[in-house]
Amino acid sequence: MLDARDWFTEIDAKDGSAFSLKIKRKLHEEQTPFQKIEIYETETFGRLMVIDGCIMLSSRDNFLYHEMMTHPVLYSHPDPRRVWIIGGGDCGSLKEVLKHPEVETAIQIEIDEQVTRLAEQYFPELCEANGDPRARFEFQDGIQWVREATPDSVEVIIVDSTDPIGPAEGLFTEAFYRNCLRCLSRAGLLVQQSESPLFHLDLIYTMRAAMKAAGFREVHTLFFPQPVYPSGWWSATIACKAGLFPRVQDIQRQSFVTRYYNLAIHQAAFAAPDFFREAMARR
Amino acid sequence: MLDARDWFTEIDAKDGSAFSLKIKRKLHEEQTPFQKIEIYETETFGRLMVIDGCIMLSSRDNFLYHEMMTHPVLYSHPDPRRVWIIGGGDCGSLKEVLKHPEVETAIQIEIDEQVTRLAEQYFPELCEANGDPRARFEFQDGIQWVREATPDSVEVIIVDSTDPIGPAEGLFTEAFYRNCLRCLSRAGLLVQQSESPLFHLDLIYTMRAAMKAAGFREVHTLFFPQPVYPSGWWSATIACKAGLFPRVQDIQRQSFVTRYYNLAIHQAAFAAPDFFREAMARR
Repeated sequence: MLDARDWFTEIDAKDGSAFSLKIKRKLHEEQTPFQKIEIYETETFGRLMVIDGCIMLSSRDNFLYHEMMTHPVLYSHPDPRRVWIIGGGDCGSLKEVLKHPEVETAIQIEIDEQVTRLAEQYFPELCEANGDPRARFEFQDGIQWVREATPDSVEVIIVDSTDPIGPAEGLFTEAFYRNCLRCLSRAGLLVQQSESPLFHLDLIYTMRAAMKAAGFREVHTLFFPQPVYPSGWWSATIACKAGLFPRVQDIQRQSFVTRYYNLAIHQAAFAAPDFFREAMARR
Repeated sequence: MLDARDWFTEIDAKDGSAFSLKIKRKLHEEQTPFQKIEIYETETFGRLMVIDGCIMLSSRDNFLYHEMMTHPVLYSHPDPRRVWIIGGGDCGSLKEVLKHPEVETAIQIEIDEQVTRLAEQYFPELCEANGDPRARFEFQDGIQWVREATPDSVEVIIVDSTDPIGPAEGLFTEAFYRNCLRCLSRAGLLVQQSESPLFHLDLIYTMRAAMKAAGFREVHTLFFPQPVYPSGWWSATIACKAGLFPRVQDIQRQSFVTRYYNLAIHQAAFAAPDFFREAMARR
């Protein structure tokens, strides 16, 4: 039995599972206008950010998620000069995006400024690139941002949001995807975190269908481990205005350090399990 | 807070994490001469087998582990006629092995007969192939089995054991690997579950070093998701007497059903993360 004074537990009631991390102490707790944010110091996972009871990231394993939300999509675009990150307030995706020398501007559009302020304080390693002159911070609603943005104004949109309940719900709709498509330039790509391949097949199916209904030509789901998320197995889905154009030579000559990502991992991530292929084809 | 009457929790004290499944009821509990076995009915993961407090398998997700412990290694041998499974008492690996028409005999060497008897009762789907005339069951110590076996008597050895503490400890030693190597025929392969890439890098390093010290020419680690195991991310390591000889055409023409495994997954599983490559090279 886990003593609630020593452990943080996220219960996934629908899937009848729970994941716990041993904590040393709670560092911060606040209710923002959007959500409740908690920060813990854990025994073995470094620091932990929790939003509305759901684990967002730990110091120890966030590199898996952040690398896989950014490098596969950026290396699949021929010329990713302008990048938007919708959500991503912890700045971990921004940091990875700015490792790419081709990127000229990266705009992080996060609805809740406090997520970024707390990341600066408690996860400074994720905010190392925040002073990069190519980075811009907009604390506003990403849904409205894409609704009002100029057509043809971005190469890659990264939707790094919480689960599709609460403020992030509108990020999983055909209307949102349609606006993204309008903003994207010719070979534009959208990537979005798409939950667990084991637990959330229905959601992934619905997302992919909405992306196609919005006019994206192709969708590709990629898979990676993420120990602190439900089932420990996670996915991201890329929607393509034209297709994927992997810059294999650039990946081979990668000029920056990653901990998980490399060319073999890039190619491997797109391998879909049989049950997944069937579930996507069947419905 | 999880009520211990409704949840089974496995605590990984060393890594400061815990995984829990909601249970309907306990179906069985017994102390055998080797270990304590418990069987639960869960809310969403089907049935659950626990040995000495560690989750062995659930009905819902064991296909990941069993497919990845068998198909990559069998399809990497030119002619896998004779197969031994050391451990594997739940018969899930045996069932996958017997899907291969090339296999002429599969011997399951499990130290604790009760694991198999309880699997027959509570996981009948894993025991479907137990009546196959190619299957043979030996309830004895796998370490002694390989010590006493005839040289050149097996093509593939699958070590499907519990963690390297208790009865399975001797399965992670150079002496054991040396005996396996002697038993293997010319292009023989050994595969062994090798724990979590995130939590157990030291163990994987030590295993691989012991395999090489025992005389295996190459070792290859493969990676796959396994939600009910610590960190949700697992590995298996293949030791090769000569090398890997993937039968790509046979995989493409695969005559049986799998839920996770396919050619793309086979190739993807061998992609090693950067941090893993470094950890294996550095020590």
